[in-house]
Amino acid sequence: MYRTHTCGALRLQDAAKEVTLAGWVQTIRKFGAITFIDLRDRYGITQLLFGEELNRLLEANPPGREFVIQVKGVVMERSNKNANIPTGEIEVAVLSFKVLNASVTPPFTIQDDTDGGDDLRMKFRYLDLRRNVVKRNLELRYAVSRSARNFLHENDFMDIETPFLIKSTPEGARDFVVPSRMNAGQFYALPQSPQTFKQLLMVSGYDRYYQVVKCFRDEDLRADRQPEFTQIDCEMSFVEQEDILNMFEGLIKRIFKDVKGLDYTATVERMSWEDAMWQYGNDKPDTRFGMQVANLKVPRHVFPEKHAFIVESPVEKGGFKVFEEAETVLAIAVSGCSEYSRKQTDELTEWVKRPQIGMKGLAYIKCNTDGSFKSSMDKFYDETQLQSFAASVKASAGDLILILAGAEERTRKAISELRLEMGKRLGLRKNDEFKLLWVLDFPLFEYSAEDNRWVARHHPFTSPRPSDVDTMIHHSPLIEDASKYLEHPYANIKANAYDMVLNGNEIGGGSIRIYQRDLQEKMFAALGMSPEESQHKFGFLLGAFEYGAPPHGGIAFGFDRLCSILGGSESIRDFIAFPKNNSGRDVMLDAPSTIDNRQLEELNIRLTDKNHPSH
Amino acid sequence: MYRTHTCGALRLQDAAKEVTLAGWVQTIRKFGAITFIDLRDRYGITQLLFGEELNRLLEANPPGREFVIQVKGVVMERSNKNANIPTGEIEVAVLSFKVLNASVTPPFTIQDDTDGGDDLRMKFRYLDLRRNVVKRNLELRYAVSRSARNFLHENDFMDIETPFLIKSTPEGARDFVVPSRMNAGQFYALPQSPQTFKQLLMVSGYDRYYQVVKCFRDEDLRADRQPEFTQIDCEMSFVEQEDILNMFEGLIKRIFKDVKGLDYTATVERMSWEDAMWQYGNDKPDTRFGMQVANLKVPRHVFPEKHAFIVESPVEKGGFKVFEEAETVLAIAVSGCSEYSRKQTDELTEWVKRPQIGMKGLAYIKCNTDGSFKSSMDKFYDETQLQSFAASVKASAGDLILILAGAEERTRKAISELRLEMGKRLGLRKNDEFKLLWVLDFPLFEYSAEDNRWVARHHPFTSPRPSDVDTMIHHSPLIEDASKYLEHPYANIKANAYDMVLNGNEIGGGSIRIYQRDLQEKMFAALGMSPEESQHKFGFLLGAFEYGAPPHGGIAFGFDRLCSILGGSESIRDFIAFPKNNSGRDVMLDAPSTIDNRQLEELNIRLTDKNHPSH
Repeated sequence: MYRTHTCGALRLQDAAKEVTLAGWVQTIRKFGAITFIDLRDRYGITQLLFGEELNRLLEANPPGREFVIQVKGVVMERSNKNANIPTGEIEVAVLSFKVLNASVTPPFTIQDDTDGGDDLRMKFRYLDLRRNVVKRNLELRYAVSRSARNFLHENDFMDIETPFLIKSTPEGARDFVVPSRMNAGQFYALPQSPQTFKQLLMVSGYDRYYQVVKCFRDEDLRADRQPEFTQIDCEMSFVEQEDILNMFEGLIKRIFKDVKGLDYTATVERMSWEDAMWQYGNDKPDTRFGMQVANLKVPRHVFPEKHAFIVESPVEKGGFKVFEEAETVLAIAVSGCSEYSRKQTDELTEWVKRPQIGMKGLAYIKCNTDGSFKSSMDKFYDETQLQSFAASVKASAGDLILILAGAEERTRKAISELRLEMGKRLGLRKNDEFKLLWVLDFPLFEYSAEDNRWVARHHPFTSPRPSDVDTMIHHSPLIEDASKYLEHPYANIKANAYDMVLNGNEIGGGSIRIYQRDLQEKMFAALGMSPEESQHKFGFLLGAFEYGAPPHGGIAFGFDRLCSILGGSESIRDFIAFPKNNSGRDVMLDAPSTIDNRQLEELNIRLTDKNHPSH
Repeated sequence: MYRTHTCGALRLQDAAKEVTLAGWVQTIRKFGAITFIDLRDRYGITQLLFGEELNRLLEANPPGREFVIQVKGVVMERSNKNANIPTGEIEVAVLSFKVLNASVTPPFTIQDDTDGGDDLRMKFRYLDLRRNVVKRNLELRYAVSRSARNFLHENDFMDIETPFLIKSTPEGARDFVVPSRMNAGQFYALPQSPQTFKQLLMVSGYDRYYQVVKCFRDEDLRADRQPEFTQIDCEMSFVEQEDILNMFEGLIKRIFKDVKGLDYTATVERMSWEDAMWQYGNDKPDTRFGMQVANLKVPRHVFPEKHAFIVESPVEKGGFKVFEEAETVLAIAVSGCSEYSRKQTDELTEWVKRPQIGMKGLAYIKCNTDGSFKSSMDKFYDETQLQSFAASVKASAGDLILILAGAEERTRKAISELRLEMGKRLGLRKNDEFKLLWVLDFPLFEYSAEDNRWVARHHPFTSPRPSDVDTMIHHSPLIEDASKYLEHPYANIKANAYDMVLNGNEIGGGSIRIYQRDLQEKMFAALGMSPEESQHKFGFLLGAFEYGAPPHGGIAFGFDRLCSILGGSESIRDFIAFPKNNSGRDVMLDAPSTIDNRQLEELNIRLTDKNHPSH
């Protein structure tokens, strides 16, 4: 062993001990004939004192920043104590030292506030990983996985590994594929999730399964997506939705406790998907703050069951063409912002007009503290009408009402974004506040106008709510009149599915699964698969359902995202040791890369020129 | 929840409780107007009693083997207790029941001694996994991973995930590759191991790393190899070989304790690679028993340092041409077998002549209990000479000496196989006895006659023993005279590497790594890589070594193999939930398989016809 102690271990009670340390040179400070070096390792920093004699040796062979050195010395009480670090009361008076390895000057400083840009830090990721902030992220990641594993173990879950080289069954996202050398012309696929395997394990009777497992999706990468990502993947047999919700609330609360020291004793709120869409414009609302959406005008076909959410307001009574012509008019009341200046409201208007939001403009009503109103629509609405708006939106004196109008889907998305932005500006989205929410009762199907058929909102193994099973079994999925797809019985089938939302992020999602062959076949048919196709792709699962499949369900948590939220960061990349960039490249390795012709030949494939397609 | 208890939970003290159980019908036994059903789940079996009234309902709707049923009933003391199962004192008198899912007749019986052949069980793996023997294997696997994780956690190791989509750098085994859609004409590779990543993590200062991780090798599969396999992968900084040996002996002993309840307090033996080859003919000797190899005749060039191992014997003094012409003559003394019949020695002769062993014949000397000798070479050797042989081989009265002669490498391998076979026949290789061994001091290089250059015996990141570093640095790796390659200084360089052997199986291996750029460059050069090539393939690692790389080393355990040995099985497939067959196929999924032309087009590749190569 090159050391007797780590750089985080020594304390005042170790004074006078002779020790050996090894680590990296963090800083070098010369004071005349003596030198101080801060020696760093994973565990901390220890100050080394090179007295006059040693200093001469040091100067003959001077180490620089990030050199790896080994020192023998004696632990001494420091005269000048540093209360900020656990080793701050001592230093090691060096008796001898050895340079174990030199370092050229790093391309950026190894500090919390580094001068390195993103690209440089990714190229030299092994140096970026030395920074304390990054190290803390990976430590948090490990703590989360450790906590999850312990909880699941204590609850009789078994970690069972599922294969990585599987069969390509593209549904939704694209598979990454792997050419097989031994089976010419054939390919494996990398799993998008272990979904069918964990269901087979339930059929096999394993009852409670988990895995912390890499998954792969060949998608066009949006910001903060990775082609490979990690899931905490779980499945249980003989359970109903309620059992799953209870178990996995418990998991997340345990992680809060173990990792953040946080007692989350509150009941986890539950909200239907429809309520979330009406009230927050979003299926993963951030419920750390209120500021719910007021639905002033919404077309009839949207969420037909819940029109109680549409509030009375003078929206169509002022002759304001923008509102009259808009499909949807939505508003939020922002607390304490009635005194926004023209400059501020202009800036908000520019914000909603950005292409990412895509609105044409923003209307506002200032509910002044003196009870008066001031609006961007003063031409169209009188004081009484403005007051009526304020009542509809449940605004109080001092609030700023922000109103968006336009096409339903875009406008709802925009009001949701605006709400989040205002919440952020008002400091209502605190990194150290954690608010969980279950979103339930998603639609089982979405309508694809392109193919005039249903597509699975979640995945084809999600079961309908128990009360909707008969509807699904007893009606044909065929849509005879495309214009009336909303009247098809399938349009109202709800999924027996649930998403767990943390601070406005979906951190996990799952469902009670179909476990009956006939219902599964109906589902595949509803998705436009012929019996032959479903047999070819999922014959093993349909087969398994014939041999005593138990009722079962599960959930998968996005591990990278969960870590980033717990770490108070918006970027999952900060919580992955070796992430890829937005083009799916590992810039440190320079991967992907070309391969030898010999490799291609062995795999029985050749490249096509992108500009000269082969057909 | 579909149950109040599992099928393994109920005991006598639960008598009179009303319970709900769910599980699979294991057996149905009718006795006149009543029926017993054994209900099975992951946790055990509970006997259900259907009394007269319920029996009528049961007969109206009869469940079969492997049906999933739910029952409500009352726990009762059994009159006819079964001491073999924990629930054997009770039964559940059924009050009501429900068939949750039916089952067609399984293609084989779900029992320990199933009637299903290997192919059938693999195709219906989800049914095979229901068998108790397979379940116990997966439970053992989970117990091993849990134990390893706990030990490593307690010793400050951190689980850090490394990427799966990396760069192809074929060295040794073939990479599986993954075409990149977003980077046309480029490929990722799946990792053969996280070797370079864990070394980078050491450069980053993470100090103690572990991962239980899937690795991939596209090899022609020998029996009991899998294209994807799992490693317990570990790395440490600031350590020497001794530190690693101590730490990981501790890991394996902890696993013995946690998983097998076994206190392995003995010191783990250590043996040099040369000694292992001389004494056991094998670099992973099974040291549960002795029966060491006696080296009667060995060519001078083999293991030049240790000729003390060649024992004096009359091998070349009898005019026996087979021995005179053989490069190598090796013998073992098999205890208590001097009374083998002619039929038995003939059978052994046939055994060594099988193509897997490939010997031309077998000589033997029976050391009779009366002190006389009887040999297959009585024509050539007199009694005194036979006695002299016996002394050389350290045989005692009652032993059977078996002698093989032929070309060095094949003969040594054959005597090793014969020794293992005799050990097995004599019951010396007990499944419940565990014997660990470190094998040390492997050659760093092997000679490739084909290319007249060195190849890495382990991998190119293994360092030479400290005493051999200067030899490596100060000599050119070029071999000027191929016929004298053994005289090249590199031929005697030993690796700072170690294998852990358990009961004759290599369960883990590792090394102290090179951490100096110049030595690593020398290593790449020794392996015939140009500076450009080593920069292209491993530039990131060479770069990392310039920024303060600490001394480090590690080890990787073959998790599948470790589990199979602990489980007393020869087949790793029995310890993998969804294994592939010897052609790398998953017969349950029918993977690999063809993929859509659209997928190929998106990936910018096309198939070549194997019979019409593209060049």
